[in-house]
Amino acid sequence: MNKKQTKWSERFSEPTKEVVKRFTGSVNFDKRLALVDIQGSLVHAEMLMIQKIILVKDYKAIEKGLNQIKREVTSERFEWSLDFEDVHLNIEKRLTDIIGDAGKKLHTGRSRNDQVATDMRLYLRDSIDSIINQINHLQKATITLAEEHVTTIMPGLTHLQVAQPISFAHHLLAYVEMLDRDKSRLFDARKRMNFLPLGAAALAGTSFPINRNFVAKKLGFDGIIENSMDAVSDRDFLIEFNSAAAVLMMHLSRWSEELIMWSSPFFNYIEISDSFCTGSSIMPQKKNPDVPELVRGKTGRVYGHLMSLLTLMKSQPLAYNKDNQEDKEPVFDVIDTLEDTLEIFPEMIAELKIFPKNMQAAAMKGYATATDLADYLVNKGLPFRESHGIVAKVVKQAVSKDCDISEFDLSELQKFSSVIDKDVYKYLTLEGSIQSRKHVGGTAFSAVKKAIAKVKIKLK
Amino acid sequence: MNKKQTKWSERFSEPTKEVVKRFTGSVNFDKRLALVDIQGSLVHAEMLMIQKIILVKDYKAIEKGLNQIKREVTSERFEWSLDFEDVHLNIEKRLTDIIGDAGKKLHTGRSRNDQVATDMRLYLRDSIDSIINQINHLQKATITLAEEHVTTIMPGLTHLQVAQPISFAHHLLAYVEMLDRDKSRLFDARKRMNFLPLGAAALAGTSFPINRNFVAKKLGFDGIIENSMDAVSDRDFLIEFNSAAAVLMMHLSRWSEELIMWSSPFFNYIEISDSFCTGSSIMPQKKNPDVPELVRGKTGRVYGHLMSLLTLMKSQPLAYNKDNQEDKEPVFDVIDTLEDTLEIFPEMIAELKIFPKNMQAAAMKGYATATDLADYLVNKGLPFRESHGIVAKVVKQAVSKDCDISEFDLSELQKFSSVIDKDVYKYLTLEGSIQSRKHVGGTAFSAVKKAIAKVKIKLK
Amino acid sequence: MNKKQTKWSERFSEPTKEVVKRFTGSVNFDKRLALVDIQGSLVHAEMLMIQKIILVKDYKAIEKGLNQIKREVTSERFEWSLDFEDVHLNIEKRLTDIIGDAGKKLHTGRSRNDQVATDMRLYLRDSIDSIINQINHLQKATITLAEEHVTTIMPGLTHLQVAQPISFAHHLLAYVEMLDRDKSRLFDARKRMNFLPLGAAALAGTSFPINRNFVAKKLGFDGIIENSMDAVSDRDFLIEFNSAAAVLMMHLSRWSEELIMWSSPFFNYIEISDSFCTGSSIMPQKKNPDVPELVRGKTGRVYGHLMSLLTLMKSQPLAYNKDNQEDKEPVFDVIDTLEDTLEIFPEMIAELKIFPKNMQAAAMKGYATATDLADYLVNKGLPFRESHGIVAKVVKQAVSKDCDISEFDLSELQKFSSVIDKDVYKYLTLEGSIQSRKHVGGTAFSAVKKAIAKVKIKLK
Amino acid sequence: MNKKQTKWSERFSEPTKEVVKRFTGSVNFDKRLALVDIQGSLVHAEMLMIQKIILVKDYKAIEKGLNQIKREVTSERFEWSLDFEDVHLNIEKRLTDIIGDAGKKLHTGRSRNDQVATDMRLYLRDSIDSIINQINHLQKATITLAEEHVTTIMPGLTHLQVAQPISFAHHLLAYVEMLDRDKSRLFDARKRMNFLPLGAAALAGTSFPINRNFVAKKLGFDGIIENSMDAVSDRDFLIEFNSAAAVLMMHLSRWSEELIMWSSPFFNYIEISDSFCTGSSIMPQKKNPDVPELVRGKTGRVYGHLMSLLTLMKSQPLAYNKDNQEDKEPVFDVIDTLEDTLEIFPEMIAELKIFPKNMQAAAMKGYATATDLADYLVNKGLPFRESHGIVAKVVKQAVSKDCDISEFDLSELQKFSSVIDKDVYKYLTLEGSIQSRKHVGGTAFSAVKKAIAKVKIKLK
Repeated sequence: MNKKQTKWSERFSEPTKEVVKRFTGSVNFDKRLALVDIQGSLVHAEMLMIQKIILVKDYKAIEKGLNQIKREVTSERFEWSLDFEDVHLNIEKRLTDIIGDAGKKLHTGRSRNDQVATDMRLYLRDSIDSIINQINHLQKATITLAEEHVTTIMPGLTHLQVAQPISFAHHLLAYVEMLDRDKSRLFDARKRMNFLPLGAAALAGTSFPINRNFVAKKLGFDGIIENSMDAVSDRDFLIEFNSAAAVLMMHLSRWSEELIMWSSPFFNYIEISDSFCTGSSIMPQKKNPDVPELVRGKTGRVYGHLMSLLTLMKSQPLAYNKDNQEDKEPVFDVIDTLEDTLEIFPEMIAELKIFPKNMQAAAMKGYATATDLADYLVNKGLPFRESHGIVAKVVKQAVSKDCDISEFDLSELQKFSSVIDKDVYKYLTLEGSIQSRKHVGGTAFSAVKKAIAKVKIKLK
Repeated sequence: MNKKQTKWSERFSEPTKEVVKRFTGSVNFDKRLALVDIQGSLVHAEMLMIQKIILVKDYKAIEKGLNQIKREVTSERFEWSLDFEDVHLNIEKRLTDIIGDAGKKLHTGRSRNDQVATDMRLYLRDSIDSIINQINHLQKATITLAEEHVTTIMPGLTHLQVAQPISFAHHLLAYVEMLDRDKSRLFDARKRMNFLPLGAAALAGTSFPINRNFVAKKLGFDGIIENSMDAVSDRDFLIEFNSAAAVLMMHLSRWSEELIMWSSPFFNYIEISDSFCTGSSIMPQKKNPDVPELVRGKTGRVYGHLMSLLTLMKSQPLAYNKDNQEDKEPVFDVIDTLEDTLEIFPEMIAELKIFPKNMQAAAMKGYATATDLADYLVNKGLPFRESHGIVAKVVKQAVSKDCDISEFDLSELQKFSSVIDKDVYKYLTLEGSIQSRKHVGGTAFSAVKKAIAKVKIKLK
Repeated sequence: MNKKQTKWSERFSEPTKEVVKRFTGSVNFDKRLALVDIQGSLVHAEMLMIQKIILVKDYKAIEKGLNQIKREVTSERFEWSLDFEDVHLNIEKRLTDIIGDAGKKLHTGRSRNDQVATDMRLYLRDSIDSIINQINHLQKATITLAEEHVTTIMPGLTHLQVAQPISFAHHLLAYVEMLDRDKSRLFDARKRMNFLPLGAAALAGTSFPINRNFVAKKLGFDGIIENSMDAVSDRDFLIEFNSAAAVLMMHLSRWSEELIMWSSPFFNYIEISDSFCTGSSIMPQKKNPDVPELVRGKTGRVYGHLMSLLTLMKSQPLAYNKDNQEDKEPVFDVIDTLEDTLEIFPEMIAELKIFPKNMQAAAMKGYATATDLADYLVNKGLPFRESHGIVAKVVKQAVSKDCDISEFDLSELQKFSSVIDKDVYKYLTLEGSIQSRKHVGGTAFSAVKKAIAKVKIKLK
Repeated sequence: MNKKQTKWSERFSEPTKEVVKRFTGSVNFDKRLALVDIQGSLVHAEMLMIQKIILVKDYKAIEKGLNQIKREVTSERFEWSLDFEDVHLNIEKRLTDIIGDAGKKLHTGRSRNDQVATDMRLYLRDSIDSIINQINHLQKATITLAEEHVTTIMPGLTHLQVAQPISFAHHLLAYVEMLDRDKSRLFDARKRMNFLPLGAAALAGTSFPINRNFVAKKLGFDGIIENSMDAVSDRDFLIEFNSAAAVLMMHLSRWSEELIMWSSPFFNYIEISDSFCTGSSIMPQKKNPDVPELVRGKTGRVYGHLMSLLTLMKSQPLAYNKDNQEDKEPVFDVIDTLEDTLEIFPEMIAELKIFPKNMQAAAMKGYATATDLADYLVNKGLPFRESHGIVAKVVKQAVSKDCDISEFDLSELQKFSSVIDKDVYKYLTLEGSIQSRKHVGGTAFSAVKKAIAKVKIKLK
């Protein structure tokens, strides 16, 4: 395999065109797999030796050569070349340059089809572990903020209208729950992908007396893939990871939307630290919430990659097809997007400045305790639907008078229903409303504190 | 709530327009939730009674009324009306018509926000159970076919080129493995969704002394959702289900693509039973593989719904927003598509007519045993890369002579490498090639038999 | 073709299974094409007569029969049956029932492949015309509102932060422009699709001496599709329509997002009429902006259908494949979604209640005239970047003092730059800022008035 | 703006974090806009001078500086730094380094919001021109191949079953038609995007007396965008381009699917030149159709980017939001994918080796002339449906005897219908069938030749 003008193999009459090399080569992006490729090759070679498929001295040479290449890669001295298509052939070529003929024996009993499937699983497994760890950090940062704001009152919204008063901590805990499911999905994806494809060779297995279980165990897999055709053509694990990533980004897009709104002058609930914002090239006063805006925007990217992968696999006949080379860039970009976003998000949350007074003031708009009045009437014996109707009338009058329900005199209230008594007023305060929701999952301060305690134990 | 011209509630001055009713009403599609809605309401009412929030006699009335409605729904006598927006209000209205004021008490301590979230989980949980069962059937039908074809030889393809000979049963088992992962993903989705939202009310919980654990247990949930905001705004479970469905359809699209190709005259491996085909309105000779073509096409539909749901949830601020009403139709259509496809696919597989001779003849095209010759050379001591190069030359010459490798004389073969001996010929047969791949996951008949036995145990 | 238990044709040995009929039949949704199908058949039959392929008396019988069927369809008396698969065979069967053998001659020289392609083009062409008309209405309703609010000042936002004051009419005109592009895209899609597929028959054309141009002209097509393979396999026109629809819905999702925010108590710029809102089943005070929320949500549905269609067509070999039957439901649903949304949106816009004072008050938050101060400094001779830096300092101090820039004394301002004079204050008012942007496309009242006049001429 | 540790502007108290710089910076990908950015700035500066907003000497300095930067960029000597966020600030910073204070005046009367919108339109406009040109090349290469194969007979397929014999050139022309629509869509997208956003400044226009029409004309735009809010927030043009690209890739995915099948041993219609294929690392005999497989796979990528952009824009309130920075990478990747694919595809088509004998042999399988027999019967006076039924019986018997229809004796044929005479045999040949389809769009050789001539004129 010399540079330029070489035929693909002896079976070919014409050399590959330069433009074709560029089009079909993958080394520019799959070199990212170099370290896991070497990791897999080391164990594969060791197994070949143990099974007496290659000589001990060949294994020793391979081991030494691969370790040297690992150092070259790590220190960025390795010279990647498009002439050798992909990460696998680049490394094999370099190995043969270093150790000679023994290098040519490494590929015994395997194919690039099972090799790359193994590499991708190793790589993604590591990435998932790292991402789960980052989600933990974000949950912890959120809990820390929540602990400070159990008694900070804000309006809970539905339809972006004021619904009922809630604890700000309660709101934050909703995101902790979402992130918990995200981790759980990633765990399940990891569990399902952690099986070894190696040994499938091109698609049918190999005639060499290999030991797949040895390789699986040594590489930390939970077992081997049971069918060689499936082993080389399965890309489920990439799609499942991307699906989980899409939901995670969706959650962060919701949170980002809220941060953007909250830091706008219309809400003015929070201020995002200067170090997470940028300004305008023309408007000197601007401080823009760039980070949450970008997170919201990057959701599109992760959704798009999911659609790419699904399209890619649609209708492919078994077993391996070259189309599958297109599986890498989307997955790498999803990993990068998640890792970057999850690095920056917890820091941003940790540095948020909160304005509890503005939150509380906002909760006063929109008749947030109307439901409490309805519940009060039910407790006085009215059917819920009837009490709902009565309170609707109260609200309508309050709107027309531009006042809060609690501002009505008792006599005025009693015009709507004679069962109303002066004890009603304590139900019409924000805190009264919140404190009454004290079951598990409710927003009462005590319930929120218990929820925090529960989550903290889980996170340990 | 009378028909026509009614205002939404006493808080409203103008009635809802007809066009708005149509636009915002959901009863046309969410009436499908009627039975699970009643199931949930029965347990909710029972809990309200136990907690002394409603009277025993009210509960009795509610129970009787709901059971009557259940019968009306089941026998399709229930009259759904767009005037009452959705399945929940239709049922509540009917309940009040039947039992009077007690009916107005049913909605105490809950909101449609947590009610519909509960309904959807109950509905989807049942659907998943049914789908998993159907996948089992498909796996069994596949295994039955595989058992008959362990020794049926076909060409294994990569890049749609002949790669190596394989057992047809081995090929079929690849799909059994894929389906296994599909089930596993559905199990995980079910596990993650099986928590009760009820009790979250609109978003903040309720001031009534409810008992969420009682309701959860009685409805078969594994627990309750820990945060009320999350409970009403979470749609992860629908997206996760749709993701798993997309991968399942992707698998079936691959299989369908193969069935279509295999039943074309170019392959002629199989014949799909007449009862799964249709003809042409113009070409009298045509017999078209409609069913696999439609399955392949319906993949688009399931992918599309996934994208709908992801788009729907992007950037939504907490908690419930009306957008979420759009979550139902995609999910229902995914369920229908899966259930229909999985009803028809196993029957079609069971009735396939297989032409083993055509498969075997196809395996003779394309030098399927070239790898075996390369492996042979390695066993004679050559490094793999070198032997690969030698065999490439052999193949090139065979192409130019339009003959198979096994048709070369020994002397001709020895021109390529002197280590070749007459024992080479047994490695160049299709069966010899297959039988040599006898490790776990390989295509050797013995390995395939073991794989079948293993899967059968798992399926019991 | 009798009911039940019939084989597809004489070429088949076994009848189609009931489940297969359901799975492969399309009449449940493609009956929607009945009227255009008849329209096409009438012209096809006329052409067959003129070309002497069928007798005049046969044509007369066909014409009479089809017109009768048209009345049956229109008055909903036509009995559709899944036994006859699709709209085409149902109509043909009924025709033969009515007029006997002449009915069997209608399908001469065509196939369902080119027939359905023709139907879909006719149907979509009509739908596009209707949608364009609806967009016009929305533009007019928007212009009417804009005319009333040329001098209504609101804060223009970037990053949801206050940027610069603008005219509310100016903001509305941005949507008029978007809608203009939407119409333009639909026009182009219509132009590109308006070619006749009929005559392509199954895929290769027909041996009968047909006259395609006659049919094209009579059906209002601009010409014929030049290649028969392309004619039956092309679905570009559906995808292009769906793409245009996706962008249109995206625009409406942006607008809806704004309406939702504007009608929230945090902005309180507008009130959406009661008749476009619904309430809460639990919270009596709620008035929810259901319509814009649903429009925002329905965006997902239209995006999803686009993805369905693209997936559907990916990698299909020529010419027609059964997969394509899956093209109809997405397109019909996109049409319905657009037509419903565009019916309701202009009415909602027309009935909006606007609160100019709240808009103006909002513009006072956030230093909306800071850019004007920077421009002032440039006019006094400072380079833009320097003046930008100076104003940034002014704003920072104003933030710390919680006052507006215009509240600084001249002497205070001069501390930042000595070139500032007392004429500065007129540039620091909202109206001063707006009026200075008087070039084409700017927000000055005069520019906005001209823009309105221009658009009104275009809309006539 | 010094390296490291700088605050965004004087309005900020804290410097931007390194991780935030990385997350929010775009220079790594938007530096690709450098040349169009300079092109726009040159005209903007000239206009500022003409309008007397800046001095002539300042303009001269800016012009000189920008031209120097252009050379630095072209020769890859320009040093891009993440410290200056994006391409715009990098160039402005360098300009000020070179020419001093005059550089700080360049940004007068514009904002990065309208600047980047202008850059993207200029960049995409050039790319579209180039892509249209490449499509022309592909059409020409296809026509050249078609001209050689007007009389090459192949089976036309529907449902991957043999339908009717066609000319290979006729099949190729279907792709020429698809490509024609692709060009037409790109032309329309170009037409619709070719309007100038510059002058919109941040969102509201500018207070400087700019001349937008001068800039538009000099930059080759057909006009100016009429509303400043729309100008900075519109991304339709990117989505429309991506939609057109998705359809183009869909077409190429269909063609690629066919090339892959045709070059498989099951079809063996064609051989793809060695220089467009690669081999296997394990199977020495393999020659894989990598290029069409990758094109098929890359379809997913282009679909995915479309979904990214649509998601990105969903529900964004006006005007500019930082999310929009995410619009660039997808569009750049779509451009690259199209340009690479369209460079390689025409060369691959030009070098295809065609095997007409195999095509013709394939057309003999599957009763391709059955429709011709049915048409024959119609011409003898039978209604089409009846003749269809008769031929279906003939085919069924032929299937059971494993012979072609044309192999039946006349007496055997007459058992099915007495109207059959010996002239029937000429209709049962492949060529007879083809030649009878001689209307416009049909596959008769004469019709195909005319179609080629027509297309060639159009392509000139």
